[in-house]
Amino acid sequence: MASLPDPEQPTITVASREDVPEIFAMIKELATYENALDRVEATETSLRRTLSFEGSHGHTNPGYAKALLLRLPVSPLNAADTPEAVAGFALYFTNFSTWRSKPGIYLEDLFVRGQYRKRGYGRMLIQALAREVLMMDGGRLEWSCLKSNEPSLEFYRSLGAKEMEDWVQLRVDGGRLEKLALGKTEAIQTGRRDERTGQVLQFNRTTSTADDMPRILGS
Amino acid sequence: MASLPDPEQPTITVASREDVPEIFAMIKELATYENALDRVEATETSLRRTLSFEGSHGHTNPGYAKALLLRLPVSPLNAADTPEAVAGFALYFTNFSTWRSKPGIYLEDLFVRGQYRKRGYGRMLIQALAREVLMMDGGRLEWSCLKSNEPSLEFYRSLGAKEMEDWVQLRVDGGRLEKLALGKTEAIQTGRRDERTGQVLQFNRTTSTADDMPRILGS
Repeated sequence: MASLPDPEQPTITVASREDVPEIFAMIKELATYENALDRVEATETSLRRTLSFEGSHGHTNPGYAKALLLRLPVSPLNAADTPEAVAGFALYFTNFSTWRSKPGIYLEDLFVRGQYRKRGYGRMLIQALAREVLMMDGGRLEWSCLKSNEPSLEFYRSLGAKEMEDWVQLRVDGGRLEKLALGKTEAIQTGRRDERTGQVLQFNRTTSTADDMPRILGS
Repeated sequence: MASLPDPEQPTITVASREDVPEIFAMIKELATYENALDRVEATETSLRRTLSFEGSHGHTNPGYAKALLLRLPVSPLNAADTPEAVAGFALYFTNFSTWRSKPGIYLEDLFVRGQYRKRGYGRMLIQALAREVLMMDGGRLEWSCLKSNEPSLEFYRSLGAKEMEDWVQLRVDGGRLEKLALGKTEAIQTGRRDERTGQVLQFNRTTSTADDMPRILGS
């Protein structure tokens, strides 16, 4: 038997296109909290273009990520709460484990609005993602955290998360990404140098110029 | 003007469904190289079910990841090379940056067969992914590496990659994932304990049992 939703409990749903202004507002609140509002390049338009939404079914906009929204209860126990107000969100995408040949979920951002913290809402959003992993027959739920953020790490450990301490993530972006794409990295521009004399020993022709690059076909 | 492919250059293409046996063979070779063949749970069937393929156009099998295959030249300079043999692959999926509201690419696995190493093929595969990021108007190319693997880190630095040293990745999988999904984490089972006496102070009802969990609707 399906049970009716408890009106005194918050709800978690996949965001629809109509929720974009609320998502954008929370992204700005999160950035303000982290003193980095100037680094937010997202707009409502770019979010509509790049996210997947409930009801889209993939054929109009497959998107690259989804958002879960946590809303306050229909009948909040706290008199100051606005019924069904959005209290937080989790933004996530699927990843993949080759050896398992299984998908997983990567939690890119988690945010609970200041006035709704200390209620277990963050945990509820993470638990909802754990359920989503199981529902897709997936293997892992993953995310990243600043090493210096010990209170969050403590919280994540209490949820059963392990820190992947032997691994480091690598990133190429901005001008370095363009250089790499065009085959203009340091090693390629200069060829291989003799470590002692600094003399250029050879030039690796296969990756020397953009024109030499193999094409990615049909992607 | 489109230029004709150089028959003396390798080619890189998105794998099609017919390439699954070759991909599976390389996954096993990679695992053997890492002394971890017993940890490979993937099969040809599971790869067909979970990957996206060239020609699928997303409507039959959206999949969770794609593979790029690097094939030897049609006219190899090296007489020992079989023309168009698969020499390596890169398995990747798209990720997402919230603040940029842009996709990126995460390189999950990179492998070049032993006999074809030291030819720059690994670099060519990574460069092809950098181009793919630019083509999708994306922001970042990312991957992970064991901290102890200094030769690889050196190579990645030469490509312009930065190590995200301030961050640690967290993972929940296996029995811990099921416990988290069902709301049975340590903190929830025991409530909050007084740090000094170890006595249970309260029980956080909103996350105490699976039945209390909000449903993920429509996902």
